[in-house]
Amino acid sequence: MSLLVVGSVGIDSVETPFGSRDELLGGAATYCSVAASFFGPVRMVGVVGEDFPKEHVEMLTSRGIDLAGLERVPGKTFRWKGRYSFDLNHRDTIYTHLNVFADFRPKLPASYRDSEFVFLGNIDPELQLSVLDQVKAPRFVGLDTMNYWIESKLEMLRKVLKRIDLLFVNDAEARQLAQEQNVFVAARKILAMGPKALVIKRGEYGALSFAGGQIFSASAYPLEQVFDPTGAGDTFAGGFMGYLAGNGDPSAAVLRRAMVTGSVLASFAVEQFSLDRLQTLQPPEIQARYEQFKQLTHFDELEVDLLQGKRPS
Amino acid sequence: MSLLVVGSVGIDSVETPFGSRDELLGGAATYCSVAASFFGPVRMVGVVGEDFPKEHVEMLTSRGIDLAGLERVPGKTFRWKGRYSFDLNHRDTIYTHLNVFADFRPKLPASYRDSEFVFLGNIDPELQLSVLDQVKAPRFVGLDTMNYWIESKLEMLRKVLKRIDLLFVNDAEARQLAQEQNVFVAARKILAMGPKALVIKRGEYGALSFAGGQIFSASAYPLEQVFDPTGAGDTFAGGFMGYLAGNGDPSAAVLRRAMVTGSVLASFAVEQFSLDRLQTLQPPEIQARYEQFKQLTHFDELEVDLLQGKRPS
Repeated sequence: MSLLVVGSVGIDSVETPFGSRDELLGGAATYCSVAASFFGPVRMVGVVGEDFPKEHVEMLTSRGIDLAGLERVPGKTFRWKGRYSFDLNHRDTIYTHLNVFADFRPKLPASYRDSEFVFLGNIDPELQLSVLDQVKAPRFVGLDTMNYWIESKLEMLRKVLKRIDLLFVNDAEARQLAQEQNVFVAARKILAMGPKALVIKRGEYGALSFAGGQIFSASAYPLEQVFDPTGAGDTFAGGFMGYLAGNGDPSAAVLRRAMVTGSVLASFAVEQFSLDRLQTLQPPEIQARYEQFKQLTHFDELEVDLLQGKRPS
Repeated sequence: MSLLVVGSVGIDSVETPFGSRDELLGGAATYCSVAASFFGPVRMVGVVGEDFPKEHVEMLTSRGIDLAGLERVPGKTFRWKGRYSFDLNHRDTIYTHLNVFADFRPKLPASYRDSEFVFLGNIDPELQLSVLDQVKAPRFVGLDTMNYWIESKLEMLRKVLKRIDLLFVNDAEARQLAQEQNVFVAARKILAMGPKALVIKRGEYGALSFAGGQIFSASAYPLEQVFDPTGAGDTFAGGFMGYLAGNGDPSAAVLRRAMVTGSVLASFAVEQFSLDRLQTLQPPEIQARYEQFKQLTHFDELEVDLLQGKRPS
């Protein structure tokens, strides 16, 4: 099944302890779409300026990503520059030039309107809502948001939350949205706001999902070196939603596999700059790392006889 | 098989957002021994003063904990008072009165010298070494330490590390000991210092273990309310080492089960003040929560056909 992805497409500059690079392909919709493309067709909605390199368009198209919804308008593409701390745990934004992204009003081509799986990237909740209004019968909608919208557009965000199936946030955003320190209580409060399921991303500690009364805890992959964390969250969401759309049945068990699949994709993405690693990634590598995630967390049953009758009464 | 436990025994006062309590039973050896007692006999080595309440001695004895190695000497018992922040993520020490613990020189009764499983709690590395010298043929030695010893007695600590099987530290201690930011690189460096295995505790994020070339990631239990975190790490170590001694075979697979067992015990300990919850805990509850840890992290295989041939080339 096709996955509809809406979000930013940009040109990034990044400085990491391992080097600096300019004119990199970036943007949430880009990372998400490429990660999702391993599992089936993707339809992208975004906007770029006249300066957006043709090679990126070609790369996306070659991966089966439908760009009928990628507008090209006069002006410059969204540009962002970030600098990472020595341990990569902190990131400073050097600049954000919205450029053509400032006037982004997502318009779905007629051919996108039958999309059943939808991922609404981190944009103004008002725009997220307008996308939902353009989809005929969405079956499963995933949503990303951030502290900026929680602070400035909470009422609108709450409207969106009532119409989606799954919210992706990090732990700080979850606490902020729920006004609650304990992450499990926060999760309960967020689910009461509307979404059927919730994913809380915890960076190097993995991710938690809450769905159907179940909690699932996914580990992060043990990486001895993170090269460039840019786009890790979007890649996670892309692997997750792409897998879900490919499977077609968003049951609790499938959501768990989607969590691991998203973690697998994100663990590859951070190994190189920009989307470099995702572009060379092969399906057997995804499969092998998925298996490593299994080994990372597997443990056997407790021997009951070790407990029974051993405790002094 | 008996587990030998060496460490502090004390009287605690704690202030949490949920209330304050004085004259609580505390100490690393206490939490560890009680947690371990669910899996078999425990031999405790420690020191208390004349003020140590008889009821605590009776409670420990009733759990099959051998107190032949618990010295009672003139003076006052070790006393500690701590205050937790509103979210329980930060703890201030109000006072630490070492009292009789200041002159603690662990002496093993003759009946303890054949111990095969040994847990050396967080004390001066010199004393840890002296305990090892008193054990005839230790088969598996677990060790706890802290930033204070890493800073002030690194050389002695390095000597101890060469003679133990497993080191328990938290992530900050691991980074400090290895002088390395990335926790997986830090783990590799620590293993090169001597221990065959390493456990890195990450609080609300669970724990990692490194043994036999394998990494295992254990989730923390999803607790909506932590009541009193005091002793959680010692309870974890106690559940871990107790299970190991009970099983008798410290293989990689058994170490994984020990990780989960330790997590189970710690998740109960923090539900009430002091050792209150551990004292009412019943084996079927341990078993049930172990099963919940399984459900928390279980996921099925990836459907290979979803990946194969789907990727546009």
